[in-house]
Amino acid sequence: MFNRKIDKKIPVVILGATGMVGQRFIELLQGHPWFEIVALAASERSAGKKYSQAVQWKMSTPLSLDISEMVLLPCDPNMPGRIAFSALDSDVAGDIEKKFANSGFIVVSNCRNHRMDADVPLLVPEINPTHLNLVRTQKYGNGMIVTNPNCVVIGLAMVLHPLAAMWGIETAHVTTMQAISGAGYPGVASLDIIDNIIPFIAAEEEKIELEPKKILGSFHKTHIEPYNIVISAQCNRVPVMDGHMACVSLKLKSKATHAQIVDCWNTFQGVPQTLKLPSAPQNPLVYMHEESHPQPKLHRMAEKGMSVSIGRLRACPALEWKFSLLSHNTIRGAAGGAILNAELIVAEGLV
Amino acid sequence: MFNRKIDKKIPVVILGATGMVGQRFIELLQGHPWFEIVALAASERSAGKKYSQAVQWKMSTPLSLDISEMVLLPCDPNMPGRIAFSALDSDVAGDIEKKFANSGFIVVSNCRNHRMDADVPLLVPEINPTHLNLVRTQKYGNGMIVTNPNCVVIGLAMVLHPLAAMWGIETAHVTTMQAISGAGYPGVASLDIIDNIIPFIAAEEEKIELEPKKILGSFHKTHIEPYNIVISAQCNRVPVMDGHMACVSLKLKSKATHAQIVDCWNTFQGVPQTLKLPSAPQNPLVYMHEESHPQPKLHRMAEKGMSVSIGRLRACPALEWKFSLLSHNTIRGAAGGAILNAELIVAEGLV
Amino acid sequence: MFNRKIDKKIPVVILGATGMVGQRFIELLQGHPWFEIVALAASERSAGKKYSQAVQWKMSTPLSLDISEMVLLPCDPNMPGRIAFSALDSDVAGDIEKKFANSGFIVVSNCRNHRMDADVPLLVPEINPTHLNLVRTQKYGNGMIVTNPNCVVIGLAMVLHPLAAMWGIETAHVTTMQAISGAGYPGVASLDIIDNIIPFIAAEEEKIELEPKKILGSFHKTHIEPYNIVISAQCNRVPVMDGHMACVSLKLKSKATHAQIVDCWNTFQGVPQTLKLPSAPQNPLVYMHEESHPQPKLHRMAEKGMSVSIGRLRACPALEWKFSLLSHNTIRGAAGGAILNAELIVAEGLV
Amino acid sequence: MFNRKIDKKIPVVILGATGMVGQRFIELLQGHPWFEIVALAASERSAGKKYSQAVQWKMSTPLSLDISEMVLLPCDPNMPGRIAFSALDSDVAGDIEKKFANSGFIVVSNCRNHRMDADVPLLVPEINPTHLNLVRTQKYGNGMIVTNPNCVVIGLAMVLHPLAAMWGIETAHVTTMQAISGAGYPGVASLDIIDNIIPFIAAEEEKIELEPKKILGSFHKTHIEPYNIVISAQCNRVPVMDGHMACVSLKLKSKATHAQIVDCWNTFQGVPQTLKLPSAPQNPLVYMHEESHPQPKLHRMAEKGMSVSIGRLRACPALEWKFSLLSHNTIRGAAGGAILNAELIVAEGLV
Repeated sequence: MFNRKIDKKIPVVILGATGMVGQRFIELLQGHPWFEIVALAASERSAGKKYSQAVQWKMSTPLSLDISEMVLLPCDPNMPGRIAFSALDSDVAGDIEKKFANSGFIVVSNCRNHRMDADVPLLVPEINPTHLNLVRTQKYGNGMIVTNPNCVVIGLAMVLHPLAAMWGIETAHVTTMQAISGAGYPGVASLDIIDNIIPFIAAEEEKIELEPKKILGSFHKTHIEPYNIVISAQCNRVPVMDGHMACVSLKLKSKATHAQIVDCWNTFQGVPQTLKLPSAPQNPLVYMHEESHPQPKLHRMAEKGMSVSIGRLRACPALEWKFSLLSHNTIRGAAGGAILNAELIVAEGLV
Repeated sequence: MFNRKIDKKIPVVILGATGMVGQRFIELLQGHPWFEIVALAASERSAGKKYSQAVQWKMSTPLSLDISEMVLLPCDPNMPGRIAFSALDSDVAGDIEKKFANSGFIVVSNCRNHRMDADVPLLVPEINPTHLNLVRTQKYGNGMIVTNPNCVVIGLAMVLHPLAAMWGIETAHVTTMQAISGAGYPGVASLDIIDNIIPFIAAEEEKIELEPKKILGSFHKTHIEPYNIVISAQCNRVPVMDGHMACVSLKLKSKATHAQIVDCWNTFQGVPQTLKLPSAPQNPLVYMHEESHPQPKLHRMAEKGMSVSIGRLRACPALEWKFSLLSHNTIRGAAGGAILNAELIVAEGLV
Repeated sequence: MFNRKIDKKIPVVILGATGMVGQRFIELLQGHPWFEIVALAASERSAGKKYSQAVQWKMSTPLSLDISEMVLLPCDPNMPGRIAFSALDSDVAGDIEKKFANSGFIVVSNCRNHRMDADVPLLVPEINPTHLNLVRTQKYGNGMIVTNPNCVVIGLAMVLHPLAAMWGIETAHVTTMQAISGAGYPGVASLDIIDNIIPFIAAEEEKIELEPKKILGSFHKTHIEPYNIVISAQCNRVPVMDGHMACVSLKLKSKATHAQIVDCWNTFQGVPQTLKLPSAPQNPLVYMHEESHPQPKLHRMAEKGMSVSIGRLRACPALEWKFSLLSHNTIRGAAGGAILNAELIVAEGLV
Repeated sequence: MFNRKIDKKIPVVILGATGMVGQRFIELLQGHPWFEIVALAASERSAGKKYSQAVQWKMSTPLSLDISEMVLLPCDPNMPGRIAFSALDSDVAGDIEKKFANSGFIVVSNCRNHRMDADVPLLVPEINPTHLNLVRTQKYGNGMIVTNPNCVVIGLAMVLHPLAAMWGIETAHVTTMQAISGAGYPGVASLDIIDNIIPFIAAEEEKIELEPKKILGSFHKTHIEPYNIVISAQCNRVPVMDGHMACVSLKLKSKATHAQIVDCWNTFQGVPQTLKLPSAPQNPLVYMHEESHPQPKLHRMAEKGMSVSIGRLRACPALEWKFSLLSHNTIRGAAGGAILNAELIVAEGLV
């Protein structure tokens, strides 16, 4: 267990503070034992306004008074803070994150821009904490950029990881049913999604087919050797508020039994669990034996939204095994995942 | 084209007239050029009541006055009529349908009970009209039993059929997102499905993995030789009123191009189209090029709910091809499919 | 009954053709016996594009090929056509409609801009056909501007009118539950309305409290004498696709019985019914005796969406009577209402 | 402030533990500082089963292990415990609650059966704590029966109470939009409520028009003198999971200003606040100035679901003032309200 001496909380800033993921960062960081929000930044349009005036707050926990009163800054690194959580739009995130890293910020990003850069860790602390060493190859001085994966990929990779470690995975086929919060705000029009399904999410299938290879890859001093796996994804938007479901079929590289796979998931523990990081769930993976579980409404908040729920493991006539999984897309799949990344960075002494 | 001389309409009865599929039968048969409803039957509990008093009418077209006033009969074959459309609960359908066939009724059933019987056609007129000859092996005298497949399977089999005929299909993987009307009334509780997904539908995956083999099979005088295909299904209930979506991945037995597959679907015509049967859609399969189509809300009513919509054909890294399909579960997938079966039976001179 | 000699259909254009109401106009005018769409106009941004490329078609009936191929024009009166149906945004509608009227178009508008102008009829053909005479006070030469009321007001005014005529109405209190299609597209964000209610619709309550006074008013050669009634409105947006519900309480000026009121509604017939105008419902008002009716999903399409459904009339301890009503907001409450207006204009010989 | 000496927690039982309100009781009592669940009771059908096997757990917080393992008892007072929280079906609640009271239990009931009994308090601790004295007129020895109002009425009465105290209320008109959780489980069928509104809830309007008169009434030694107010209610079921909204119009007995009314609500404090009872919200009434607030999704959980949110106060042309209010129907409006009642009973020394 890692005990951080709490002389003083680490000052953090949030870039893109008014969007859905930015709001989740604020919600999850309220009362955080290690981190303290010292600045909020947003687009030029919002900069200069009080946060409460610029935001359309959509979280169900109320906005605290001190955050309400903060004046939004432009996304310029000339601000206090040691860690910058980035929830920026991807059309501006690339450059802004580099500027903050160059100015000495530890940029912990939820954006896709730098995820596949050779020197940037695509970090899921339960899976690949060693990838954090990649930052030593970065050229940002005291600063660095660390990313977390796409909102579907985090849950998927967490479920695949212990199987890959134990038996190897040859092929995985993934059909997703994704919540509307994943599209931001205003995002999906109600006329488009009530009583409906949209069988397409722009650029999503590509990420799901690509990112897990890096995440599950092995670290070799200066680079990541990608994990050799074939992934096929079919993505759908469904009328669910939060929580991405995935139906997965896969073929392992060696033989496993049903009991072994379930056991492999249920006993899985990673570095965040060993270190008891503040945002780490006790059980990162939970297999549910009830045949109609997991369900978004009932299980997305498992362990405060940081645990991944799995169910319905059974033989797949087409590949080998099939099952369903659920993870919270804006907590474990975005803001919560990034905060856990930052906690690992602190525990590794990189701050 | 088949022109039925309209001396007189054929008298038909509906078994299980108060349920969701029973209601669809009534809606679709209003104004039918060949068939006329002469009796409605339901459970003992409802028998003796006026239809309008026994039913909770859920269709959006209003109930006609003459149907409203009909008195429900018990499910006893001692009633007028030549064709009996069956929308009974499967726990009673098996015996009742046999009794009606034995009494000389042509039983056109939507129930699962006799679907896999060796002498019962599992009929989709666009796919396997020759299977209708199986009824010559039945022992019901003037009567017979003909079934249509499960609500997901009809659309799926229609989409697979021309591919199987042209290139052969080795393997198909299907993930469904199924509408709540498929669960009957009252069916799915609102507390269970609003803002939610249920990743399980009892006994559904088994049917999807089994029924297409018979449907796509070949007729050999007295039996059906099943089509050799591996199918894997993962079924989900989603908050959509009508229209089952499926994400399909498959491996063909020989090589095809994207253009050839799309063309194969778009030019497909079956016997119902040639005969211009009253309920036959002009285009049973429609490939949509817009990448976010098909969608339940927009396309389930294509050609009055009798056409199957397909979209997003692309390479699948895990199998070979993947795409999405949509069909209306209580029209093409149930009552409308059964009515088309009855029309084929008439056109084949079996009435 | 009015029989229009059909030498030739009247050429009509649609202003604001890509929005939700514009789409309804196109849907409802397909196959119209009197009118033929000869041009579609939209904002500068869309002008020059094919309609199918500029529109996100949201109707459940498919777009016809000839409309798909039409090239959108800018909103300039230099185009063919005799009647211009206006579904423009209200921030531009005011001037554009005047220009079209000045150029000789009969502008039949769904927009709010000119509704309360002293010389513009706020027309509901079942209620105030004589108000059409107001156009004789307009200064547009061959052109004119005629408007229909707000989407809630049409149904409300239709239900109030026969009561006002028979007993007089002193006060009406209206709480609405309004469908999302009323907010246009993209309109209400799904994150804002799934599992939610928004107890506010901008500028809506003002219209509901004001417009009925003019509609129910009496025509005096050159002006409308408003009807003397107090109305209070409370408006809510609810997760319903189409169909505005209203809970109404009212106080009559003289005594009526329950049976008299129901009878007054059920026997009500207006000029459109007498003339059998093509879009006129046979029964503009239908009182339903089932205590859980009317419901948006079941009854919004009553008589193709042109009839208003009423239910649950009972004593109100606070005022005098209370009941629920339902009307289709984009058909009777918008495009369908405007088309009926145009039909009355034709029948009155004003084209 | 009332400080209970915590020698030992008070043993409580839950009657009707498997239903929606029963589940809320369990959820809210987990970790309660004063109360400890020692037994769960349910219908004969469930008695003898483990709770986890008998219940379909619908709360989003997971069921604790010790509750899961409890064996359900029949509803017989021969069980340990001092307080019995009743969430029974009203068709059995009447007799069972009397039996438990006769056996010495303090029955704190959410059921409607005894609410209007002359010797039973209809208790809302912020409004009428003195009504608790009515129990001295009961004939149950150490036992007693105390009830809380209907789920709509609690929020409504809390909002009316300070206005009634300050200015008096002559008339109130209430239109509700009620969540589906109010109908229990399975309750409302999804086919009935998705994309729909049901303008009727059985026996609901009667309670809303009646119960506030008793709640707001004054205690006179042995009876309650009802408050003289006219209430009219129109109830609707809407597709919202939790949280009942009401649009209220009212007429005060004397003049008030907008600022005075808002202030009257925002400064309101009752006995639970003074005593700082464990479940008491700091601010029982919160007026929100944002014109689109309150909304069920955003505000139902205000102060853990125990606070009532109000918004949009403005002049009503028909009565005098109108506004919207929101309260959580299964927390403040049911289980949470009952627990607060029990806390008051403890603080008053009646246990």
